[in-house]
Amino acid sequence: MPDRTFDARDTQMDELARELRIDAVRSSTAAGSGHPTSSLSAADLMAVLLGRHLRFDFDDPAHPGNDRLIFSKGHATPLLYAMYRAVGAIDDDELQSFRRRGSRLEGHPTPRRLPWVDFATGSLGQGLPLGAGLAWAMARLERPSGSGGPGGSAGSDGSDGSHRSGASSSSASSSSSSSEGVPRVWVLSGDGELAEGSVWEAAEFAGFHRLDNLVLVVDANRLGQRGPTRHGWDLDAYTNRFNAFGWHTRAIDGHDTTAIDDAFVNAEDTLGRPTAIIARTLKGRGVPEVENREGAHGKPVPQPDLAIAALGGEPRERVTVRTRPPVRMHAVPRPGDRDADRDKDAGLPTFEIGESVPTRKAFGAALAALGSARGDVIAIDGEVGDSTGLQPFAERHPERFLECYIAEQQLVSSAVAAQSRGWVPYAATFAAFLTRAHDFLRMAAIGRADLCMVGSHAGTSIGQDGPSQMGLEDLAMFRTLHGSTVLYPCDANQTARLVAEMADGTGIRYLRTTRGETPVVYGPDEDFVIGGSKLLRSGDADRATLVAAGITVHEALKAADRLAEQGVPVRVIDAYSVKPIDAAALREAAAATGCLVTVEDHRPEGGLGDAVAEVFARTEAAEDGAGGVGEGTPPRLVRLAVRHMPGSAAPDEQLADAGIDAAAIEAAVRDVVGGGERAKRGG
Amino acid sequence: MPDRTFDARDTQMDELARELRIDAVRSSTAAGSGHPTSSLSAADLMAVLLGRHLRFDFDDPAHPGNDRLIFSKGHATPLLYAMYRAVGAIDDDELQSFRRRGSRLEGHPTPRRLPWVDFATGSLGQGLPLGAGLAWAMARLERPSGSGGPGGSAGSDGSDGSHRSGASSSSASSSSSSSEGVPRVWVLSGDGELAEGSVWEAAEFAGFHRLDNLVLVVDANRLGQRGPTRHGWDLDAYTNRFNAFGWHTRAIDGHDTTAIDDAFVNAEDTLGRPTAIIARTLKGRGVPEVENREGAHGKPVPQPDLAIAALGGEPRERVTVRTRPPVRMHAVPRPGDRDADRDKDAGLPTFEIGESVPTRKAFGAALAALGSARGDVIAIDGEVGDSTGLQPFAERHPERFLECYIAEQQLVSSAVAAQSRGWVPYAATFAAFLTRAHDFLRMAAIGRADLCMVGSHAGTSIGQDGPSQMGLEDLAMFRTLHGSTVLYPCDANQTARLVAEMADGTGIRYLRTTRGETPVVYGPDEDFVIGGSKLLRSGDADRATLVAAGITVHEALKAADRLAEQGVPVRVIDAYSVKPIDAAALREAAAATGCLVTVEDHRPEGGLGDAVAEVFARTEAAEDGAGGVGEGTPPRLVRLAVRHMPGSAAPDEQLADAGIDAAAIEAAVRDVVGGGERAKRGG
Repeated sequence: MPDRTFDARDTQMDELARELRIDAVRSSTAAGSGHPTSSLSAADLMAVLLGRHLRFDFDDPAHPGNDRLIFSKGHATPLLYAMYRAVGAIDDDELQSFRRRGSRLEGHPTPRRLPWVDFATGSLGQGLPLGAGLAWAMARLERPSGSGGPGGSAGSDGSDGSHRSGASSSSASSSSSSSEGVPRVWVLSGDGELAEGSVWEAAEFAGFHRLDNLVLVVDANRLGQRGPTRHGWDLDAYTNRFNAFGWHTRAIDGHDTTAIDDAFVNAEDTLGRPTAIIARTLKGRGVPEVENREGAHGKPVPQPDLAIAALGGEPRERVTVRTRPPVRMHAVPRPGDRDADRDKDAGLPTFEIGESVPTRKAFGAALAALGSARGDVIAIDGEVGDSTGLQPFAERHPERFLECYIAEQQLVSSAVAAQSRGWVPYAATFAAFLTRAHDFLRMAAIGRADLCMVGSHAGTSIGQDGPSQMGLEDLAMFRTLHGSTVLYPCDANQTARLVAEMADGTGIRYLRTTRGETPVVYGPDEDFVIGGSKLLRSGDADRATLVAAGITVHEALKAADRLAEQGVPVRVIDAYSVKPIDAAALREAAAATGCLVTVEDHRPEGGLGDAVAEVFARTEAAEDGAGGVGEGTPPRLVRLAVRHMPGSAAPDEQLADAGIDAAAIEAAVRDVVGGGERAKRGG
Repeated sequence: MPDRTFDARDTQMDELARELRIDAVRSSTAAGSGHPTSSLSAADLMAVLLGRHLRFDFDDPAHPGNDRLIFSKGHATPLLYAMYRAVGAIDDDELQSFRRRGSRLEGHPTPRRLPWVDFATGSLGQGLPLGAGLAWAMARLERPSGSGGPGGSAGSDGSDGSHRSGASSSSASSSSSSSEGVPRVWVLSGDGELAEGSVWEAAEFAGFHRLDNLVLVVDANRLGQRGPTRHGWDLDAYTNRFNAFGWHTRAIDGHDTTAIDDAFVNAEDTLGRPTAIIARTLKGRGVPEVENREGAHGKPVPQPDLAIAALGGEPRERVTVRTRPPVRMHAVPRPGDRDADRDKDAGLPTFEIGESVPTRKAFGAALAALGSARGDVIAIDGEVGDSTGLQPFAERHPERFLECYIAEQQLVSSAVAAQSRGWVPYAATFAAFLTRAHDFLRMAAIGRADLCMVGSHAGTSIGQDGPSQMGLEDLAMFRTLHGSTVLYPCDANQTARLVAEMADGTGIRYLRTTRGETPVVYGPDEDFVIGGSKLLRSGDADRATLVAAGITVHEALKAADRLAEQGVPVRVIDAYSVKPIDAAALREAAAATGCLVTVEDHRPEGGLGDAVAEVFARTEAAEDGAGGVGEGTPPRLVRLAVRHMPGSAAPDEQLADAGIDAAAIEAAVRDVVGGGERAKRGG
């Protein structure tokens, strides 16, 4: 239990809050933009958290015994960065670089650039899903009394080492904090963002999992960007809702440091339930010109000198904050660690050439095997594990399996949270339903998250279920994410190898799988590198190149074989790595055959066809004036993709209706190479 | 008040439920796929609804006084279509076409193809957001005691006319239903889908707006696809949650037709609050082999003959269902109807060439004017109306303005709901945050919805706020939607005209606006057609073509002017219509200049560069064997786009860092045309 001997009415907390407010005003004034009023409302809350409760070693931010702090109201960076200054993690010069080009103090907090930030925020309503996922990972995967987790300071056996101590005459830290207990996740949220469904998806998740290591602090300042929030200062509206979701709740005056302190102590004492503290605050608190006024969101205070004077003027000497030390953690071996140096392909399932296996099943078998070889792999399901292939993993590694139910935003948030601790998450649902989490994936990319996403039931080939279940936009969504990798295997062996391969990548890696059975075309020893491709048919006389991936590889092979019989040899490239795409192989094929025909079970926009086309464009402005595009004459491109709105039909009918089956490919090639006469023969 | 003289214990309801179950088993057996067990659980609920409560004229599905029924559990089509058969809307032959190619009875319900369906469902958790939006539109826009709404049967003055009466010996309808009251929205949901945050976003919306014309019926059959749902049969878990959100709730036995009837009567009597009826049911109810068993989701029953026998065997004569008649509606003029035949451009704001105006402001001014010219235009905000430009509309047309707060899924659902009633919704938030609603937009496209979406703060040019607020993936997302239109104006006059133009389109129309000021380059009388472009610079000696849109048009113009001074004339095309793109103009420019340089404030994938590249690919397999790609030799393409992860910086710095400003364009052109020597001069 933490030591509670400090005096909660200590004026140090008020003084710290005052300094945080002044720094928030100063940095946003220097920047000429930013959100000081949203910072002023939460300054007392964060002063008490920083000064009395947060267990965090700013010199060792990865310490597994650290608490974590998530600013869901990511625009309140003037406050967050003022806190960093208060603990000495940044200096005043850096604080004044806020929002300037090149500064790591961006308008919204950014992981990696700032070692104390776990997640990119700024799209509201994401902090709680991330925090809930993180609290789950810390409580359930890392078992705080034992393991240190894969990303923490493995081997670190204590936390009471050196801590920053300032030269100031005063210290706001409690003097004898214990290193016992569990590390907590603190989420600071606005009230307006509680309108996001994702918040309640997460509230359900956290309540269900009884995550008592999670504390949500709602800065209910009553004013959104445009005007008053839905419930204003009706704090009961929020407590009633969180109570209904199984939370412990408390409503307080968010400017009463004693009440805040009591609420935090109470949260730390609450077992079996997450805590939501709803704090009534004033937006712009302490600066009369903007306090509790509409129209003052997202801009510097109008008269900073008056504001700072109203806040009591710049302090002559500053409060030195020493945060509580991290919880003492003893690193213990993680499940599977003993196998961590095993060949990652060891134990992967293999399949016989000619066998028919859905790639979603191969994914499932491979992931279960990978989970045995690597103790850092976890799997996250959206209540469709029997369809996506996660079931074998769930059965073999239940301690590393998370069922998120039908909640794709929480699915992705849980994965992002787990990767922040060093786990390698594979999160899977139908490809179509991953669109539900697009904004979370977008923010994950901004947050430099490393995770594996898997979308099953890609394309029209799912058949009778119809368009609502078809992933037809997923390649576009994942390709557009910065730093992403997009893989789309066509057979079971290729799938298995790519499942293992993607574990070691960076950024968001996406694997697209197919519902129906496809024949195995590769041997079990074939290698598949990310960024590569496979040449499945080729000859000197090839008159065109078919570029396919996934299900369409098999249609392309059928078409190529029929065309060859008709005297029209064509090349077939399996572009299983859609991003990065194998530019060299495509250029070579273009040079050799003059024409590329792309075939994809996806909308025409943003998928394979676009990826191939981009290879033949110059994509960077050259630094010097040296001339020439350099990629030679672009080839002719023909694109087959899903251009209509499908209905229900059998898988082969779907491919035919979309014009992406073997017959359509054959017709397209004939059309390009002028094979009209032969077409009559080939029928 | 509806007539309540019927006998709620009437065995007709049980017999109707039995028939619905048998038809659900039969159709899914004939299809060889589908979701009979999810249909069997809800059959009693829907029998009572159809036979005793639903006010709906199947011969006049657009009647404004009809209730609306939304199957949020869209996979329960075997039940939905059995209901259609029960009322005689389809015959048994059609029922047996379920899930066959060409049948309108798709695996999940489809609007337009089926006149009784308003929304595509099948992505779970969307029915309640749509239903809440619809209930709002019916209650607040259409004022049931008065107007008939824009999409209803305007002029219809009653509803007690002829109704289908079968030849059967029995009738399940109540004999003297009143035509008074208000039309209701009924949503049938599963229990598993209540894990979706969107459900609670909608619960909040409906509770806040006190939508007592909305009834949610939860078929809590305890079993999801993979296994048990989170709360199983803990009905209190759900009632507590809905109560907390301001709903009236009731928990019942979902197989007790008397209890069901009582609950529906109670819902109809409840004022000031939406009602949630949580019904405990058995999945697979009535078929012992699958009843309440795991592993029986989404497949035909194993032995259909036994199943039908267990259900009591095929009926010798069928219950004839006459639904209650629609509510009598008197059509009254809608706001603005008197002006409906006015020139749609009348009253649009105009701007002077050279003036600097953000396109988001021009959008706002234009929409407010359009709202005066057209009474069917409504505006929906995501609590950022002061930023997106919606504020003037909100002030001028408050009765047609909906504040959805920070809830983008509800934002889009409200728009989709309103368009189903014939309104023309403009829903706006930051472009970045529209990704939150990707799945809802995807389903809206499947549902053939006609609506206008507006995304502001596009691209890196927003400046200091950083990447979380930048729409960098929005062009890709909207382009990939089937049947979509994507517009990206560069100046205020163009924006205004496009805002008016898009009102009359079909499908999802997207307008992308810019945060900062841009100079007005077009006169107020310039016309802009969808699918068009504007040639802003051209000459006989042009050595390349710059293709830009939005903010980059101005960078392209600067670059072109500098290049011209250096003796390198280039063409500039303003491709404001990104989809459909002006293929003819691009082909002409390619033929004339041989090289196109695309410049976009967007990720390289899925945006303008891809749209331009696709023009030079053949996109359809020809029906006959006539040879030749036909588009001539593809031009060289150079693509400038946002390839890095931006941080915070000033707008001009952002464009420079992304390599999409005038200097970067100039360098790229020099590189292509070999202008190295001149480059040294031009600096």
